[in-house]
Amino acid sequence: MKAVKASIPKGTRDFGPDQVRKRHFIFHTIRNVFVRYGFQPIETPTMENLTTLTGKYGDEGDQLLFKVLNNGDFLRKADKEALSSLDASALLPSIAKRGLRYDLTVPLARFVVQHQNDIAFPFKRYQIQPVWRADRPQKGRYQEFYQCDADVIGTESLLCEAELVQIYDEVFAKLGIQVNIRLNHRKILEGVAEYCGYPDQTMDISMAIDKLDKFKDGWVGVCRELEERGIPAEAHSKIQEALQADSIETLKSILADSTVGQEGIAELETIGRFLDGYEIQNTLQHDFFLARGLSYYTGCILEVAVNTEASGQKEIRMGSMGGGGRYADLTHMFGLKNMSGVGVSFGAERIYDVMEDLDLFPHDPSAVSQLLLIAMDEESHFYAFHLLRQIRAAGVNAELYPEPVKMKRQMKYANTRQFPYVGIIGEREREEQKIALKNMTTGEQSSLSMEEVIQTMM
Amino acid sequence: MKAVKASIPKGTRDFGPDQVRKRHFIFHTIRNVFVRYGFQPIETPTMENLTTLTGKYGDEGDQLLFKVLNNGDFLRKADKEALSSLDASALLPSIAKRGLRYDLTVPLARFVVQHQNDIAFPFKRYQIQPVWRADRPQKGRYQEFYQCDADVIGTESLLCEAELVQIYDEVFAKLGIQVNIRLNHRKILEGVAEYCGYPDQTMDISMAIDKLDKFKDGWVGVCRELEERGIPAEAHSKIQEALQADSIETLKSILADSTVGQEGIAELETIGRFLDGYEIQNTLQHDFFLARGLSYYTGCILEVAVNTEASGQKEIRMGSMGGGGRYADLTHMFGLKNMSGVGVSFGAERIYDVMEDLDLFPHDPSAVSQLLLIAMDEESHFYAFHLLRQIRAAGVNAELYPEPVKMKRQMKYANTRQFPYVGIIGEREREEQKIALKNMTTGEQSSLSMEEVIQTMM
Repeated sequence: MKAVKASIPKGTRDFGPDQVRKRHFIFHTIRNVFVRYGFQPIETPTMENLTTLTGKYGDEGDQLLFKVLNNGDFLRKADKEALSSLDASALLPSIAKRGLRYDLTVPLARFVVQHQNDIAFPFKRYQIQPVWRADRPQKGRYQEFYQCDADVIGTESLLCEAELVQIYDEVFAKLGIQVNIRLNHRKILEGVAEYCGYPDQTMDISMAIDKLDKFKDGWVGVCRELEERGIPAEAHSKIQEALQADSIETLKSILADSTVGQEGIAELETIGRFLDGYEIQNTLQHDFFLARGLSYYTGCILEVAVNTEASGQKEIRMGSMGGGGRYADLTHMFGLKNMSGVGVSFGAERIYDVMEDLDLFPHDPSAVSQLLLIAMDEESHFYAFHLLRQIRAAGVNAELYPEPVKMKRQMKYANTRQFPYVGIIGEREREEQKIALKNMTTGEQSSLSMEEVIQTMM
Repeated sequence: MKAVKASIPKGTRDFGPDQVRKRHFIFHTIRNVFVRYGFQPIETPTMENLTTLTGKYGDEGDQLLFKVLNNGDFLRKADKEALSSLDASALLPSIAKRGLRYDLTVPLARFVVQHQNDIAFPFKRYQIQPVWRADRPQKGRYQEFYQCDADVIGTESLLCEAELVQIYDEVFAKLGIQVNIRLNHRKILEGVAEYCGYPDQTMDISMAIDKLDKFKDGWVGVCRELEERGIPAEAHSKIQEALQADSIETLKSILADSTVGQEGIAELETIGRFLDGYEIQNTLQHDFFLARGLSYYTGCILEVAVNTEASGQKEIRMGSMGGGGRYADLTHMFGLKNMSGVGVSFGAERIYDVMEDLDLFPHDPSAVSQLLLIAMDEESHFYAFHLLRQIRAAGVNAELYPEPVKMKRQMKYANTRQFPYVGIIGEREREEQKIALKNMTTGEQSSLSMEEVIQTMM
């Protein structure tokens, strides 16, 4: 067999031990908070039917779906006309019926409809699984990455929104990242559209203000975009006046004539009432400019970003660390109507990068080996193996170098793997029933009994 | 948008909360033992290059690989000749360059070669990830399932084999499944082939004896198979004599003239020496009939199955719960020679089924909600939400029904979700600063302060 070059597809990643442990630390932290708040785990298959996925993420999303070729002779049932005209998109449905999970929301909707008779509603579920997108690989953007979602399905109670704010607050506090949690409401944006005289153009206004951070010239760029979308200059100042309102009270009077605007404000106030007295560990604010993925959300909108001031790291790249909101009709695409849902997502990959940048990952001795035993001769090797069993039984993660080779080679291994302690066993140690324990940080070495070694590791 | 039927591809599964928790209990148990023994985690991408996967699992394996269609206009670079002759296998390389991970061994080999300069050898790695195989779906066989592997790469020390036996022993003891761990050695089978006079037919002999359990007529069937493979009757009794040896001593004298056979025996004896004095919690035996996947393994072979007698469950379906062995040259397929490896795999799906059958999953209160608060009116609902925060802060997984609807509906939810406790809060409870706590198992109800409720949950 000819040797194959060892490589992986572009946009995918291998994770070594240190990375896996850190990634799991993040997942574990998020999961624990989800569970504390009563969210229950589900897992869905990597492959979904393409009929489930297609058309849910817009045309661009459909392009980014990974499609899995049908098994066996996939050309047997292929669309012959599409084949001969080399029409890939026309051919697709006849040769690929499955695709890879693109997000966790559509699978959730599918799951809820498929298992609706087994689910107690309101259904609080969390899901931590990878998703795949055929995005052009670039720095920080991968074709396989994890999403961590929590959603509540089947209730319109604003208690859920309040809990999701608390969840963001608790998770980031536990991770040690200072964040700013921002809240807005789709109905407020609808109210602003009414106020400026273009009630049917909420979407255009939202798309424009969503780019505020992206435009180099800020609000001037937004105005240009509004103009292009058919909203003239005289409306711009009214939009700006409303969105810049310094408090919910001010906004309430600005949007006094908009019923829908008042509804949105009232909902934010109710969320505020739930959170009244809650001692937030991060910062929480209303941001009427917030308009993420609005076509999707129908109620409250949430977004979380690193609070660069509080974290004392001005240079840290901003970017959203998570977001979410309420969608009135999650499951209609699978034929189940009137299932209101609200959810948030954590951007685990960005969280990882920020924690690396800020050196926030804790050292967890229970996840790595504490002790490497080194044997000086074959007899000591067997002897050390029997000691090792008792050391492990006491709860210590420990190893014995698999061969009693030269001490230098074994010590080199100990250094590379960064064992905090090395226990050396030769003829003398065997006779004295001791272990020569070396502290690899200080270099100190002492002759200890096995019990004393275990004690030192604890 | 037309509603799509909510369904998943054949051979795949959704996992609800209870299943996810149980599956993670298994993974968690296995992972903890791996870590105790010094194994380090890696994770590899779901998609590998097809050049990495193809040809590694035999022709049948190649058929069972899931192939991922290239993105965009996949027909643009398609092999036009293969297209016009409708030759699916000839077309494949030009339209699909990636496939889904089929096992964890080939990705490990690829990983070791690709990252060889960053790895400290011997490399003890574990990996717990799903794999995909386009097997015909049937009861108990899925197209997506988890593997849990531990391997040591870069040493020939038999200490590794001894540790893998201990790992099997500890994991199954922790899971509560009584198993029988069987050991054999490829060189013993080679010795038997020499002994019976057909030294070049180790493979044929192994394939035949591997079917001993599958043939209804047992040994008679094996003899028929041997005959078909060109090994005549006079050799059968010699094979049987050797394989049935009641001890390693007996086998040693039977294979006295086989150098390779003696080497295999000596290795099993060394493994025995490492395990000498180890108080095994299951059973461990030599089984010279054991011949799993022999083309792959070059040294020791291990297999684990439920010990039906010890588990007191005669009817439990047998089947392997895991297996492994040593392979002399794991990485040669990627151009790195002389890397000996040894590893074991846990069949998580079968372990799950056995644990369900034997009702072995423990109840873990930290994984589920302990308390549902129920509010009788809107004012109580806000009040309860504030209590909830403090109850959670004390470490209790708790929920508040999101709306203060009729008590009956809230209690129905509590029953369906099987909360052990329900805390009812109405006007009186608010005034008295109490919670009416109902024990859902006994039906008892008592009026308690929040602190007392927390105490009860602990």
